[in-house]
Amino acid sequence: MSGVALRQDAARPLWAERVAGIPGSAIDSSTSLLQSQTHDIVRFAMGSPAPQAIPAQAFADAAAAVLSADQAAAFDYGPTEGERELRGELLRFLQGVHKRAPAEEELLITSGGMQGLDLTCKLFVDPGDLVAVESPTYTNGTAVITSYGGEVLEIPTDAEGMDVDRLEELGRARPPKLIYVIPNFQNPSGTTLSLARRRRLLELAGEWGSVVLEDDPYRELRFGGEWLPSLQELAPEGVTVVGVHTFSKILAPGLRVGWVSADAEIVAKMVDAKQGLDTCTNVPMQRLVAEFMRRGLLDDHLVAIREIYRSRKLDMQRALEEHFADLGAEWTDPEGGFFLWLTLPEGIDTQELFPIALREGVAYIPGPAFSASGRFANALRVAFSATSGERTELGVARLRRSVEAYLSER
Amino acid sequence: MSGVALRQDAARPLWAERVAGIPGSAIDSSTSLLQSQTHDIVRFAMGSPAPQAIPAQAFADAAAAVLSADQAAAFDYGPTEGERELRGELLRFLQGVHKRAPAEEELLITSGGMQGLDLTCKLFVDPGDLVAVESPTYTNGTAVITSYGGEVLEIPTDAEGMDVDRLEELGRARPPKLIYVIPNFQNPSGTTLSLARRRRLLELAGEWGSVVLEDDPYRELRFGGEWLPSLQELAPEGVTVVGVHTFSKILAPGLRVGWVSADAEIVAKMVDAKQGLDTCTNVPMQRLVAEFMRRGLLDDHLVAIREIYRSRKLDMQRALEEHFADLGAEWTDPEGGFFLWLTLPEGIDTQELFPIALREGVAYIPGPAFSASGRFANALRVAFSATSGERTELGVARLRRSVEAYLSER
Repeated sequence: MSGVALRQDAARPLWAERVAGIPGSAIDSSTSLLQSQTHDIVRFAMGSPAPQAIPAQAFADAAAAVLSADQAAAFDYGPTEGERELRGELLRFLQGVHKRAPAEEELLITSGGMQGLDLTCKLFVDPGDLVAVESPTYTNGTAVITSYGGEVLEIPTDAEGMDVDRLEELGRARPPKLIYVIPNFQNPSGTTLSLARRRRLLELAGEWGSVVLEDDPYRELRFGGEWLPSLQELAPEGVTVVGVHTFSKILAPGLRVGWVSADAEIVAKMVDAKQGLDTCTNVPMQRLVAEFMRRGLLDDHLVAIREIYRSRKLDMQRALEEHFADLGAEWTDPEGGFFLWLTLPEGIDTQELFPIALREGVAYIPGPAFSASGRFANALRVAFSATSGERTELGVARLRRSVEAYLSER
Repeated sequence: MSGVALRQDAARPLWAERVAGIPGSAIDSSTSLLQSQTHDIVRFAMGSPAPQAIPAQAFADAAAAVLSADQAAAFDYGPTEGERELRGELLRFLQGVHKRAPAEEELLITSGGMQGLDLTCKLFVDPGDLVAVESPTYTNGTAVITSYGGEVLEIPTDAEGMDVDRLEELGRARPPKLIYVIPNFQNPSGTTLSLARRRRLLELAGEWGSVVLEDDPYRELRFGGEWLPSLQELAPEGVTVVGVHTFSKILAPGLRVGWVSADAEIVAKMVDAKQGLDTCTNVPMQRLVAEFMRRGLLDDHLVAIREIYRSRKLDMQRALEEHFADLGAEWTDPEGGFFLWLTLPEGIDTQELFPIALREGVAYIPGPAFSASGRFANALRVAFSATSGERTELGVARLRRSVEAYLSER
């Protein structure tokens, strides 16, 4: 096939217009980039769980049960809305932790949380629609919005999450069709949207008729502070909230199993749309998760991994204190999740710093990846989830060495 | 959440415009529908492999190897382009069977063939673009096209597949941007595009600058007739062919693992787009398939399942001969794949027949599901893949009984 030229002329452009809105992800590309490196690299880049937090032994046991020789049905097509066993286990789990758990027809199993974001934008974002997002926000969230032709309206954030006064100010003249928000231990900042702001955001959504896309992969990973109700739980009558969730962060990302909770009418439309995306989510992994839950393993697992991440955040903050305090750098203090946000002194460009850091043996995601307009040149996202103790300290020391090399090379 | 009203007013429509082009799939919905039935139903509806054709024991063995307790990495995120081991095994396999196998950068692992169709339309179909399709054609193929705003141009087919003279005639005034074709043992008709027509179709694509979307899930399931080169193998310089493939039909659909072969530039764009769809294809199932192939099991498996499907097609044709010949019904004679196309006498509406058939204990997909304009009222798709022998005979006898009931109830 190689050498086949693409026919492209002005009269007949090859690519669809939306291709201009498909940027590719600096985060996902780093998986490939890092796999191709042969020297030792401390990985603060991907939002991967701690290897210790993946219940590989329990998965192996459950897999032996659900993928045995008499289980050919586990390999056939499944219903688009998800395997019945998994839906049942998940509903029971959600009824245990949520004040307002979804009903059966309000639940859709998805191929990871990413597909939930894609489906939501597919159903609600027309070309030219305005979508309000936190700034900084999750790279792939922005990418999905622009892939459907949406225009991104960046709302500043602080230690309490999206600044809703600024949302009101910036959205007043032309209200957003969709408000995309990651309320808990936000990606990338690690901050949490306060209760008062959750309420105000919902008020604005109600006034404007905006749909709220609540992307909440980390909720179960709170290791400090106070449990907060979700936007979906708080939503008054008439405000539409689509909740996007995943097993990626609490069990394992490779499973590619997540879920959406939304009004039944929205879920029904999502089922239609998902049939054209991937027919159904992979069946064996749905059954594996269902079996893991059926065995009653999830609750204890969550208790154990919260402790892992609490301790890893402290390791990271200790290392930053040691290697970055004298530089005047600042970092956030997450009460859960995987990430914190490191702001270096102005003038340090974290994109230019990146190849030096890679050479020194540490990887992260540069700040501008989290802003459609390329803000946050001197900031970066650090995942504290995948490393601990001395390894974390080594990575942070290498990062500081990279900064020194960067400053001396300028 | 229940009782939350959707806010919808003329000034601010809730749904994106494209939602009108997302019809939902009569095929996929039948999975759910059939699971909810409590009486015995012979299933000619879904394009599922024979249970005997799913190597459940080999999968169980391979799963024990790749999902063991020390394999936590099998559950982490993988590269968007696919797991290295699977890519390697697949390239070796394709080099064995194709004259023009893809190079490494021309290969993308997808979440089933469905995602390959979605990615192709995402990259190439703008709202209002014309897409030529076989009539009848695969329901979900049409659904993906319309979900991106494409307009479907139905090209008649006969025993040799798409009628390329009609394609030329219908496309001349306004050439299609994309030509969607299922060349081997087509879904739903079971027919195969002849070599002469493959060549002519590519000439037209070259003249018009149309991209060819070659959807080829059944190629390895030829059990009769003569092996034909793919459109991608035949494509002259300057003609872009995107090949969409899957393990769903040759191994198991529940895995949700497929692949696309295309020019490197297209694959690179697809990687960007896939990052916003589902990040990566589920990792454990990719490793399972890779391990199955690494153990050298695929070739013998293919030989064995071709024989299964050959025999099942004969069972189906024998039963049709017995129960439908006197009715003046006609059916196609596939040389591979899962399906044949049954045309009943005019005046029998297979959509009206469906609830009666379900009551009688047999399921199929009505003809109009395979036409954007609802043609083929008196035809239906029969999957011969999932049943054999007496079970097939029972289903066909029930179908005939349904027709009798339908005719007497009119």
